[in-house]
Amino acid sequence: MPPLKGRKSRTRDGVEAGPALAIECVEPSLDDARHPVKRIVGDSFHVTADIFRDGHDLVAARIRFRSPSDREWRYAPLAYEYDSDRWDGGFPLDEIGSWVYTVEAWTDVFATWRSGLQKKIDAGQDVSLELLEGAEIVDAAANRARFGDIRNALKQAVATLREADLDQRDRVTVALAPQLIPLVESYHLPADLTAYDRELEIAVDRERARFAAWYELFPRSQGDVPGRHGTFATAERELERIARLGFDVVYLPPVHPIGETNRKGRNNSLEASASDPGSPWAIGGKEGGHTAVDPRLGTLADFDHFVTRAHELGMEIALDYALQCSPDHPWLKEHPDWFFIRADGSIRYAENPPKKYQDIYPLDFWCADRAGLWNACKDIFLFWISHGVRTFRVDNPHTKPFAFWRWVIEEVKQRHPQVIFLSEAFTRPKRMKHLAKIGFTQSYTYFIWRTEARELAEYLTELTQSPVREYLRGNLFANTPDILHEFLQHGGRAGFRIRALLAATLSPLYGIYSGFELLEGIPLRSGSEEYIDSEKYELKHRDWGRPDSIAADFELLNRIRRENRALQLHDNLTFHPSDNDRVLFYRKSAPNGQNDLLIAVNLDPHSVRETTVHVPIADLDIHAEESYGVEDLLTGARYLWRGSRNYVRLDPREQVGHILRLIR
Amino acid sequence: MPPLKGRKSRTRDGVEAGPALAIECVEPSLDDARHPVKRIVGDSFHVTADIFRDGHDLVAARIRFRSPSDREWRYAPLAYEYDSDRWDGGFPLDEIGSWVYTVEAWTDVFATWRSGLQKKIDAGQDVSLELLEGAEIVDAAANRARFGDIRNALKQAVATLREADLDQRDRVTVALAPQLIPLVESYHLPADLTAYDRELEIAVDRERARFAAWYELFPRSQGDVPGRHGTFATAERELERIARLGFDVVYLPPVHPIGETNRKGRNNSLEASASDPGSPWAIGGKEGGHTAVDPRLGTLADFDHFVTRAHELGMEIALDYALQCSPDHPWLKEHPDWFFIRADGSIRYAENPPKKYQDIYPLDFWCADRAGLWNACKDIFLFWISHGVRTFRVDNPHTKPFAFWRWVIEEVKQRHPQVIFLSEAFTRPKRMKHLAKIGFTQSYTYFIWRTEARELAEYLTELTQSPVREYLRGNLFANTPDILHEFLQHGGRAGFRIRALLAATLSPLYGIYSGFELLEGIPLRSGSEEYIDSEKYELKHRDWGRPDSIAADFELLNRIRRENRALQLHDNLTFHPSDNDRVLFYRKSAPNGQNDLLIAVNLDPHSVRETTVHVPIADLDIHAEESYGVEDLLTGARYLWRGSRNYVRLDPREQVGHILRLIR
Repeated sequence: MPPLKGRKSRTRDGVEAGPALAIECVEPSLDDARHPVKRIVGDSFHVTADIFRDGHDLVAARIRFRSPSDREWRYAPLAYEYDSDRWDGGFPLDEIGSWVYTVEAWTDVFATWRSGLQKKIDAGQDVSLELLEGAEIVDAAANRARFGDIRNALKQAVATLREADLDQRDRVTVALAPQLIPLVESYHLPADLTAYDRELEIAVDRERARFAAWYELFPRSQGDVPGRHGTFATAERELERIARLGFDVVYLPPVHPIGETNRKGRNNSLEASASDPGSPWAIGGKEGGHTAVDPRLGTLADFDHFVTRAHELGMEIALDYALQCSPDHPWLKEHPDWFFIRADGSIRYAENPPKKYQDIYPLDFWCADRAGLWNACKDIFLFWISHGVRTFRVDNPHTKPFAFWRWVIEEVKQRHPQVIFLSEAFTRPKRMKHLAKIGFTQSYTYFIWRTEARELAEYLTELTQSPVREYLRGNLFANTPDILHEFLQHGGRAGFRIRALLAATLSPLYGIYSGFELLEGIPLRSGSEEYIDSEKYELKHRDWGRPDSIAADFELLNRIRRENRALQLHDNLTFHPSDNDRVLFYRKSAPNGQNDLLIAVNLDPHSVRETTVHVPIADLDIHAEESYGVEDLLTGARYLWRGSRNYVRLDPREQVGHILRLIR
Repeated sequence: MPPLKGRKSRTRDGVEAGPALAIECVEPSLDDARHPVKRIVGDSFHVTADIFRDGHDLVAARIRFRSPSDREWRYAPLAYEYDSDRWDGGFPLDEIGSWVYTVEAWTDVFATWRSGLQKKIDAGQDVSLELLEGAEIVDAAANRARFGDIRNALKQAVATLREADLDQRDRVTVALAPQLIPLVESYHLPADLTAYDRELEIAVDRERARFAAWYELFPRSQGDVPGRHGTFATAERELERIARLGFDVVYLPPVHPIGETNRKGRNNSLEASASDPGSPWAIGGKEGGHTAVDPRLGTLADFDHFVTRAHELGMEIALDYALQCSPDHPWLKEHPDWFFIRADGSIRYAENPPKKYQDIYPLDFWCADRAGLWNACKDIFLFWISHGVRTFRVDNPHTKPFAFWRWVIEEVKQRHPQVIFLSEAFTRPKRMKHLAKIGFTQSYTYFIWRTEARELAEYLTELTQSPVREYLRGNLFANTPDILHEFLQHGGRAGFRIRALLAATLSPLYGIYSGFELLEGIPLRSGSEEYIDSEKYELKHRDWGRPDSIAADFELLNRIRRENRALQLHDNLTFHPSDNDRVLFYRKSAPNGQNDLLIAVNLDPHSVRETTVHVPIADLDIHAEESYGVEDLLTGARYLWRGSRNYVRLDPREQVGHILRLIR
């Protein structure tokens, strides 16, 4: 159907009319169209709406939508669910970028007329007036038809409908001919075309925005020999190891020059020795700021080579985007007005009174030269994008203005819609969610701190089944350089395996910080979540071949993730009862029964746990007494299960969980 | 606090910034501020909102609102719920009409500064720079102060804060002095004042919009002797009877001249005899249309007298507003263009193919002279308002455009905000709700068709506890001239008493059509909800003193309603378990424990029913083993109850239910 141009409201003599039809509750919609919902290219987009009008006339409706590259609106039909005033329809999302859609409706005058005509004919009533009135509808369409043959066909129908000498039955046959319907509908101009009062956005990302395994790596620790600063060149070798483990994204903490003034020493001490490398988050030195690389890591050309090698291995590099400056950052001299100037003319360092962070200077995002600063921050993204980076992990975005993120993400995505932004906002829930609403592609979550079955089920249900699923894609990191959870400190090898299994199966997005596979779990002190001898302040040298390594777990988990569609989707997670509250039981399923996984995890790293799990057999089309096979993708073992309740026993020294694929 | 004028967004050099703070989820809000929520004058209005910003600075927020007579905005504070990013506050609604409100927030620079200062002092740090920075905040406020003494006080504080020679402790004392806070806050100009992106409306009605007992009466049936057409004068006597029964609103079917052409006879027959009075809904005759009275009822002066008499008795008259015309309505000659003109030039009568309604002509609300027609329809309201009518029961509003209702109700309420509109839309739920959203004060409901305990509990919970409570006030009619439910046809005297008790206690708004108290329950034929010998087509003459009348039930119920605040409120209904599913058990409570009613109704008119009801003792502050008294307001009997589970026995021949007031 071509675009319709109708009157939304008819104003005359001061008697203003609102929309003729009611269109309500168009979904999906995030905060009433204030923010885009998120989807992945290739998804089909499903729309529902409440649409109705007064009286008994029939209504027609459609979706109006536009892809990023469309210059004109496109349309998709909406179908009526009987007696519900609810309509639904959809269209495929075949392009990355920002889509727009809304809903339109109008009175279907021709269908209403045909329906009345049919009823009167069925009741044996004379319909000569009806035929003349129908002729007017068809004639109006004929007059709008641009092509001769359609116009002629319509005009001929009009003539027949008006031909009083003809047998009424013959005229009725023409009136109700199915082939007349699309011709009239194509050229009918509705007098009451009504559009929904909002246009809604869809942010369509590439597949990696929803499905990816992340691996965080300090390239400076990947030196040839212990104690020697690693380089992009030496770190390239680690890429092969990481690729073998099946990771998709290698995330690097900041690779920029590190400030020397007030540099932090080992274990965050205020005094650094000459050999201390400093924290990568103290960005900026005499060699440059956010668009330079630390010369100890190599050159920009080395970086480019590193990025290219990752691509060759099927992975991509994610960079850290941390908007703060060391005292030696060039911006302090070039743009002191981008910082907070104190009453004595000095530049304000970071504080959280009474704590002082004298190695870090925050930017004043609302300074007089806001445009200059914001554009410079945008240019950092564009610079690294020009060096092959497509993913950024954004440091502490909740300490910079929402308005800045909304602006900069839109600016970048307009040019590079494939870019992915991961929000590292460990803050209160509404602020975390707001950052996701205003543009961040993925978000760190509270997953690390959810260790009990009830906590995990509640939190993951919120992320994947509540309205949050429309905009917040949780990336479940099992550890970070800042967060070594107590569970890992005390859980031993089984503890690490449990958290790996949970992270990799509860969400299509998960990540670890390197060292996790080597069970690094000693805190700075009891009660702390900081690592002892943290890699943030010193070089590490690891023996990747250690016999207790759980690297094989990741190799297997990442392979299972690639082979099972259910583990690549976000909103397909449901929890089901387990009689032992230390065994978590959940289901991940791909649409149409193509891939059903039942996953049981022993949350207790210290003890064998037995339980009866309650399989949602009704949802799986399994009868109460029916037997069915399940295969443990972790071991290859097969079990014959029956009905809803089935027995599970997990000894954490051997196996912390099952990923059971339902055999159909 | 005086109005603030801040910058919502700061645009410069094409780098546009959105709002600095996030304000989300402002409530109450109906369909995201598209429609007003409804309240009653005297209510206090409670507002909540999610408000937050980036970083650690403190936030301040307030409600901005305007009553119908306010020429400037007023403000009310919002208070922060710790760590939730949720704020709440409120203001009293002391005027009938359309109110507007929204929410504003900004960074509380002065409080943030004081908080940091205090922390540094507590840590023994030097604060000389902080004092100078605080002086700048205070000085900016001083420069905006209009009054000399406040300005002077602020300037003096500035001087002290800047006085380097003074002991730092003395300067800190001035900086943190509580009396300084309101002075600075009053004149501080926030740089980031952010308003919520919607203004929200509140439709504030008079008390009768929420709490009223309606009585529907055909005045023409109130003749002196059987068979003689009643008049306003003879009907005045009935007003005294109705007032004694405690009703608040007397609703009259149309009182206009009735068409003679194609007039319907008794029992809706197509042929009327000369003596048949016709249906009052076939509006318009040679004596006039919607602004005339049927001369058989008397004159306009008689009508005025009738209205005045009702007011004297503490009641008001509601008129029927039915926008359709008999073939004899003056508009058919004066404004044929306001109707649908057929292909042969005739005016289209009402049809629902294959049914024909040749005594009724629908209006074409989208005709070329739409302004003329809509204004004429508006003038009908204004005419009767000028004759003392303040309440209209609107006939079949779902068959006229939503746009018309939105316009005409707003037009009328702008002039006469006290007017009440009752929507008689027995249609699908979303259309019924939409009419309430766009302006109708009250709505007919599906109550008549809800007879089982589960149905009643579900439906009334939706009306009173879901978001529907914000805009749809259900008026629970127990019968109407069009609807005689099967339950009444077969339930006998107890059946009528059950429905009366339910209607009068489940909702502060309820009504009956006269004859209900005389147990009129014979249908036109089996399976029909039409009355035999319906009053719509003939005069009735009733013996109000019949011994089986349940008029005393209404006298008692209406007195109990007036004496118990809990029965005057709308959103205070909860259902509680009863072990016998034929006994419905519910609670109506006024705030602060001032009035708690526990109501049990036997829904079975034919059998004695016993049950154990589960009293929500925790909500009533009663301990598990505690004894408490309840008084049956219907009988005066008192019972001693204990704990949650208590015994109820109801013999429908004697008593169909209890209204138990909790004795505190």
